[in-house]
Amino acid sequence: MRQYETFELHFTENENHENAFECNISAEFTCGEEKKVVRGFYDGEGVYKIRFLPRKPGEYTWKVSGIVNAEGHEYCDPADEAHHGMVKAVDTHFEFEDGTRFIPFGTTVYALAHQEDALVEETLKTLGAAPFNKIRMCVFPKDYLYNKNEPPCYAFEKKADGAFDASRPCIQFWLRFENILDRITAMGIQVDLILFHPYDRWGFDAMQQADNYIYLDYLLRRLAAKPGIWWSLANEYDLSRTKSLRDWEEIEEYVAKNDPYGHLLSCHNCFCHWDTKRENVTHASLQTKSLTEIPRWIKECKKPVMIDECCYEGNLPQFWGSLSAREMVFRFWRTFASGAYCTHGETYLSDDDVVWWAKGGVLKGESPRRIAFLREIMESLPGPLVPADGGIVELAQMSPEEMEKGMAQQPEDLRDFIRMIAASIGRMRVDDRTAHIGGEHEWAAHVGEEAFLWFNDLMCFGEQTLRLPEDGHFRVELIDVWEMTRTVIEEDVSGETIIRLPGKEGLAVLAMKM
Amino acid sequence: MRQYETFELHFTENENHENAFECNISAEFTCGEEKKVVRGFYDGEGVYKIRFLPRKPGEYTWKVSGIVNAEGHEYCDPADEAHHGMVKAVDTHFEFEDGTRFIPFGTTVYALAHQEDALVEETLKTLGAAPFNKIRMCVFPKDYLYNKNEPPCYAFEKKADGAFDASRPCIQFWLRFENILDRITAMGIQVDLILFHPYDRWGFDAMQQADNYIYLDYLLRRLAAKPGIWWSLANEYDLSRTKSLRDWEEIEEYVAKNDPYGHLLSCHNCFCHWDTKRENVTHASLQTKSLTEIPRWIKECKKPVMIDECCYEGNLPQFWGSLSAREMVFRFWRTFASGAYCTHGETYLSDDDVVWWAKGGVLKGESPRRIAFLREIMESLPGPLVPADGGIVELAQMSPEEMEKGMAQQPEDLRDFIRMIAASIGRMRVDDRTAHIGGEHEWAAHVGEEAFLWFNDLMCFGEQTLRLPEDGHFRVELIDVWEMTRTVIEEDVSGETIIRLPGKEGLAVLAMKM
Repeated sequence: MRQYETFELHFTENENHENAFECNISAEFTCGEEKKVVRGFYDGEGVYKIRFLPRKPGEYTWKVSGIVNAEGHEYCDPADEAHHGMVKAVDTHFEFEDGTRFIPFGTTVYALAHQEDALVEETLKTLGAAPFNKIRMCVFPKDYLYNKNEPPCYAFEKKADGAFDASRPCIQFWLRFENILDRITAMGIQVDLILFHPYDRWGFDAMQQADNYIYLDYLLRRLAAKPGIWWSLANEYDLSRTKSLRDWEEIEEYVAKNDPYGHLLSCHNCFCHWDTKRENVTHASLQTKSLTEIPRWIKECKKPVMIDECCYEGNLPQFWGSLSAREMVFRFWRTFASGAYCTHGETYLSDDDVVWWAKGGVLKGESPRRIAFLREIMESLPGPLVPADGGIVELAQMSPEEMEKGMAQQPEDLRDFIRMIAASIGRMRVDDRTAHIGGEHEWAAHVGEEAFLWFNDLMCFGEQTLRLPEDGHFRVELIDVWEMTRTVIEEDVSGETIIRLPGKEGLAVLAMKM
Repeated sequence: MRQYETFELHFTENENHENAFECNISAEFTCGEEKKVVRGFYDGEGVYKIRFLPRKPGEYTWKVSGIVNAEGHEYCDPADEAHHGMVKAVDTHFEFEDGTRFIPFGTTVYALAHQEDALVEETLKTLGAAPFNKIRMCVFPKDYLYNKNEPPCYAFEKKADGAFDASRPCIQFWLRFENILDRITAMGIQVDLILFHPYDRWGFDAMQQADNYIYLDYLLRRLAAKPGIWWSLANEYDLSRTKSLRDWEEIEEYVAKNDPYGHLLSCHNCFCHWDTKRENVTHASLQTKSLTEIPRWIKECKKPVMIDECCYEGNLPQFWGSLSAREMVFRFWRTFASGAYCTHGETYLSDDDVVWWAKGGVLKGESPRRIAFLREIMESLPGPLVPADGGIVELAQMSPEEMEKGMAQQPEDLRDFIRMIAASIGRMRVDDRTAHIGGEHEWAAHVGEEAFLWFNDLMCFGEQTLRLPEDGHFRVELIDVWEMTRTVIEEDVSGETIIRLPGKEGLAVLAMKM
């Protein structure tokens, strides 16, 4: 047993049970005064397994009860350098359990596990060399444009009438699936596992809620002890033709309640965001192209915000799959320079319909190496970025009382002018105001007083005034996000600092305390 | 006297009057059963002038009364080919009085008339070779960043205490100003004349309302008979430190009431749009970067929508003055492909602070020749573009009743899905919904069933499905808006048509009936 690594007990019990998959088998693990009960699962051929994730080192005793009765003890070694525990949401960023920072750089291969072995192998090889440390992928196969192939196997066996039987997991599927998950997480890539999705011709999206629970129960017993998995309740929950909002809420509650470890949990939207303020939700997982709204969302939900779909690099005939590599890279920078996290996807038309975004294979695009460049910079920061305060966004959202409170810090001759602007903004319709503020958004974030990042996006400034703390010694770098160059343009500056810029799109400015 | 050209009567009257500028002199012009009374103005050195704009040919008699009494008659010849009358708003587009289409392609030289003669000459020369047929410029001088120079003269004489006296126009100013206006309009460029603006150190923005009326009275008597002028009440009305919303409304009412001809009239905002539904307002003159909202605004105000400020091509340190040429061009295409009209401006840093946007001089940018290319295409269309109906925008704005009414035209198996989408959109907060819809906006407009335009913007489609009328014969052109190329890619197609595209940004597709 080693801290942060899945510990597994095996038992063979050949006696027949009514339904081996809903078996009554659990173990109590005790370490000092801490006890945790985890349930086991049937793995076929008479084998029952119980998996446990130890999160601190020390002497453990375990006691199995139910259809098997047994007990034992194990010494749990402290974690090795490769294992940091589960990723947790801390304030508006992510950390591993041991405190190591985790900055997600995601991609999507939604139907990865539903492709033939050769393609899966190719995908894993590509992932091994790619800059991504998070992947969104589905338990169930995908029926959609460019996704019409049958998977090698399914999560459940079929009933006599040909319908899938949620109460009989297909062991062959789960072994294969688990192997893929394990190989991905072993590469340091977190799996944002999509539990339901609406692109379905097999009936997995149309199961009764009771069957949804049976499926989730098995999945949680089987997978919850794996530290590298996040629960994504859905891709585009609001496109499911069969589940009501209340159904989704119950699913959320079921997963949270039956997960012994508290994995990250989110729910991905098409239109209306899942309510990220709900207690079980650890972070926002948003489909959106409206990146200017990120600071507001971070402020509202007070949790990490993942932009889990902002269109994909590619040339599909759909707006969601036809970003240039440049625009994909710019969207990453906009997102990170707003204090949030971004997910990549790639959708180049292909004669054989092997499109990375859903099936994997090889990456053809120009964005991944620029995302690697961004990742390197983000990992060099002294801490997590949070969006810059102030500006027109704040002003627009203030009550008159709040505004007057803040006014004391404004120069006296500007106060009437600020009140006048606020009055004009206040007269705007909400839709006009939202659009207006979005149009004037500045992409700016900072790490306390330690580091300041501006992504200048399409603005071709010939010069720029940085407002740095008066008492620091800052080094200022000019970053060309497409050309992937970093140039130190100022050393040892502080306070209001005017820098000269070459007047082109796609530049970022990073000021870091020396 | 000639139709659509200013007719002028001169009288010399050396007797002293209390205030020659507020003189009582007017003329009644009669043509058949139509009578129009126009007031005259003092032009200095004892000269009083009355200007009249005849709008139809025929025999006119005129009778002057007030401090001068005189009468006479003139035959008004029909217009020559160079004169089309005033520009009028018709539905959501513009036409000259004689029915000739006018498609505005604007630029700004706000303080054009407040520069020294040599610079004014250079600006007029530049305008003569530029693609612009509308210019926004101010009556009053400008005090702002890069605008600190004193003008050669001012609209008013000064009082003994050094303050400007609205009741004593400076004839030298008005003669010079008028000459500039006349030379610009003679080049076929409409002058969108800005009557007030807040960038002021001389007090022109801080006059009492009574003085505002005295100034407007003189201006209207002097300039209203010139057909090439539009009244822009303000640039950024809501940044005036001295005028309340009610003051502005009164100014609007005063101008509309005292203009005998009904020139185009608008009011330009910084934040909250001027209420374009007001009766005196002929069209929207918007500062906005939120071009995705254009179809909604057109639908709401049912008048032409001019995007009179969407940032400028340049490299200033401000977000509003640092667009790349490409982005300026793209914003023009987005605007036109939404059924609206767009205004250019150029703001390159310059050692002598001569920045085109406010002072004129020469154009340095790369957008004007691409705007010329767009203008050529727009002028080749069989009529005015209106934004495409339908799509998610419409759905989001429908009441449940409207939605059910439209549902009958939808395939039966899609209706529940559409209802579900509408429900999710309906649950969104207004700000989230606005941002969402903006993020998925398609730039598409059409001229009836005759022509269809899509601007694909950043979308790098490898193919695209056009939904053309079933019964037409369409020629499809692929337009590269930056490279300025037009390539016929389909001939004689109709109905659903799939076209192959090269997967790059900045392409437009134009399908026109052959």
